[in-house]
Amino acid sequence: MNVDEIVARRNRLLGRGTTLFYDPPVHLVRGEGASVWDADGRRYVDMYNNIPVVGHCNPRVVDALERQARTHSTHSRYLDEVILDYAERLLALHAGPIENVVFTCTGTEANEVAMQMARMATGGRGFITTTGAYHGHSDLVGALTDAPPRGRANVNAFAIPDPYRPPAEGLSPQQLRDAYLAGVTAAIDDFAAAGVPFAGMLVCSILANEGLPDIPPGFMGEAAALVREAGGVVILDEVQAGFCRTGSWWGYQVTEVEPDIVTMGKPIGNGYPLGACAGRRDLVERFRAETGYFNTFSSTPVHGAVGMAVLDELEERGIAAHVQDVGAHLLRGLEAIAPSCDRIGDVRGRGLFLGIEWVVDRESRAPDSAGAAAVCNALRDRGFLTAPAGPNHNQVKIRPPLVFDRAMADAFLEAFADIAVGARAA
Amino acid sequence: MNVDEIVARRNRLLGRGTTLFYDPPVHLVRGEGASVWDADGRRYVDMYNNIPVVGHCNPRVVDALERQARTHSTHSRYLDEVILDYAERLLALHAGPIENVVFTCTGTEANEVAMQMARMATGGRGFITTTGAYHGHSDLVGALTDAPPRGRANVNAFAIPDPYRPPAEGLSPQQLRDAYLAGVTAAIDDFAAAGVPFAGMLVCSILANEGLPDIPPGFMGEAAALVREAGGVVILDEVQAGFCRTGSWWGYQVTEVEPDIVTMGKPIGNGYPLGACAGRRDLVERFRAETGYFNTFSSTPVHGAVGMAVLDELEERGIAAHVQDVGAHLLRGLEAIAPSCDRIGDVRGRGLFLGIEWVVDRESRAPDSAGAAAVCNALRDRGFLTAPAGPNHNQVKIRPPLVFDRAMADAFLEAFADIAVGARAA
Repeated sequence: MNVDEIVARRNRLLGRGTTLFYDPPVHLVRGEGASVWDADGRRYVDMYNNIPVVGHCNPRVVDALERQARTHSTHSRYLDEVILDYAERLLALHAGPIENVVFTCTGTEANEVAMQMARMATGGRGFITTTGAYHGHSDLVGALTDAPPRGRANVNAFAIPDPYRPPAEGLSPQQLRDAYLAGVTAAIDDFAAAGVPFAGMLVCSILANEGLPDIPPGFMGEAAALVREAGGVVILDEVQAGFCRTGSWWGYQVTEVEPDIVTMGKPIGNGYPLGACAGRRDLVERFRAETGYFNTFSSTPVHGAVGMAVLDELEERGIAAHVQDVGAHLLRGLEAIAPSCDRIGDVRGRGLFLGIEWVVDRESRAPDSAGAAAVCNALRDRGFLTAPAGPNHNQVKIRPPLVFDRAMADAFLEAFADIAVGARAA
Repeated sequence: MNVDEIVARRNRLLGRGTTLFYDPPVHLVRGEGASVWDADGRRYVDMYNNIPVVGHCNPRVVDALERQARTHSTHSRYLDEVILDYAERLLALHAGPIENVVFTCTGTEANEVAMQMARMATGGRGFITTTGAYHGHSDLVGALTDAPPRGRANVNAFAIPDPYRPPAEGLSPQQLRDAYLAGVTAAIDDFAAAGVPFAGMLVCSILANEGLPDIPPGFMGEAAALVREAGGVVILDEVQAGFCRTGSWWGYQVTEVEPDIVTMGKPIGNGYPLGACAGRRDLVERFRAETGYFNTFSSTPVHGAVGMAVLDELEERGIAAHVQDVGAHLLRGLEAIAPSCDRIGDVRGRGLFLGIEWVVDRESRAPDSAGAAAVCNALRDRGFLTAPAGPNHNQVKIRPPLVFDRAMADAFLEAFADIAVGARAA
């Protein structure tokens, strides 16, 4: 079948309207490391997929999965030590207050649990987040998606703390931080004014879907303090930021903020459906007592075995240091290309999570989402998979498996430089 | 570590309050077919677990999982034919109106999608279900759990249509059906009276958590008709009933009711986290258009490969016919034991999904949940895993992997007869 026929078949079976990348889309059939191959045998360097954090089809992870799946896996109403070994190791990687963990199958489910925990602990129902948030697709968690500042039940949003698009020009970093913090305060206060009891804040620790802004130093820690002063719970979503993505284990280490609850997903099982909501003991135990939470496919021996193999790979291969090295190399390369093309408004990020702001021109900073999509298609044609992202859909998002290496980075930089020069404003 | 030490470790890491079966709990380490083994090497016949529908650690399913996981698996924004092959085959097993499918990772997620679809299609938000319902743990779906008849926002519940505990004695089957249907009508009408726009009905097609009542013939079809007359969508949850559990492919074939949406989970992937919400094309496409639904770990090639292997096993091993045979044999055996013990109020069910009502005595029919728990512990001691269930927690639930055979059934009947005789009312 050719691509058009597969698309037609997909529409017939899954319903029209499923999201697809690239025009025409890519039909993948094989993966290894940071490479994937399409049905015609063409290789692509994968610079988008954060889920296979230790590489597509990582042999050690698949071995662990296979071994456990052939031996034993049942639900969590029986005793099992595999999942406890994993829970112990995962919790040890976290900050002190994070003592207990509830496993789930997806990041959405982890955020569901976190929001329920915060509501139970506070008796509140109002959550604050940013105007560019995405944390999952359930009814409760989906209410946070791209929330307007006000007007959605139980959600108030504050502006993305983005120095590239500041509320006013010429502010010092401290003034910028305080201006954005005023937005946090207003979001909290407006709940009080409306009689909505406050439950807390749920944000990505590095504001990934918000376009990876260069968050003003101190902003996240101060925002968390404001939330706690108002009696709320601080939930940090590590679904994208966690597991060495930034070169640190957790995004909250980069942005210097301490969570009451952290949620994990995507890379945690290298593709196996696994999520986790870890938090303070009082929060978790109250949730357990009030709900008797049980998740059929979760907290299984397979969850434990797969999660452990991912940690083994990350630790024994020294992925954090590798990410710091390759990420810095890639960022320097992009910064060197930027002056040659005035459509590149900004290049930013950390570790192997970078974004290239594609704009109409550098003066207006007007987002060019069509241009970003065209760049991603052009990169696809040259064998590099990226995708447009960010609140204005104008960022070329770079977020490869963490085994992505310097040689791949150099090949990408050569291709991107070529596309960038060709895309200069007329 | 002994059992007490593992429990203490579990409490320390996962938080106190996780649910555990049996006193003392069982520590499982191996599974094969319908058998599991504990850490001391003791074998149990598994008569509870419906997830490993084609047997614990089914080699064909694990082979398919391993092969695909070693080759390729990415998210669904690329084209892939494995998931489409599976979607086509799964949809072909369903009734005519079910044309499209949305894959998820869990049954809860499938019911989330179904409820969102119904809300979008109707503009409504009120759902009816039974007073003994359980369909998942998210905020939206969890609102259906053990709902009171009235008083919970957007949920009205109707009485479980249970001839064993009828609203009045001496009713004919037709009178009984009509009495219960009046409850459905009242639940719908009360939304209209309260100004809550109606979205539909979400029920298990065989009312499994409701204690597997002998639903009065015609009730389910008539209830669905009432829902449609009121403009609502009929969602049938096949998470427990589906995939040959009753000896038919779907529970809705047994209770003779046609769905607008069906949801699937537990057995669908033999333990791999997979769920599905299939429905009428108009419902699915509207949902796709309004949400752009994307589920990170779902609709992957691994989902397709695992789901297909489960269908292969069910079909090629003739599981439906096997279930009819072994299930009928087991039911006859239980019916033969029942007269010898007046604590057995009722034995009912279909295929390999049976429930034994444990009561204080046959006259009062008063549920004896402590007695049911004691029976399950006694069965555990004799090497058979069951668990108490039902709205009154007084049913001994029998719901084994479908490879459970006649020899296992005979061994169980011998053990159960012994326990039952010993448990006669003094």
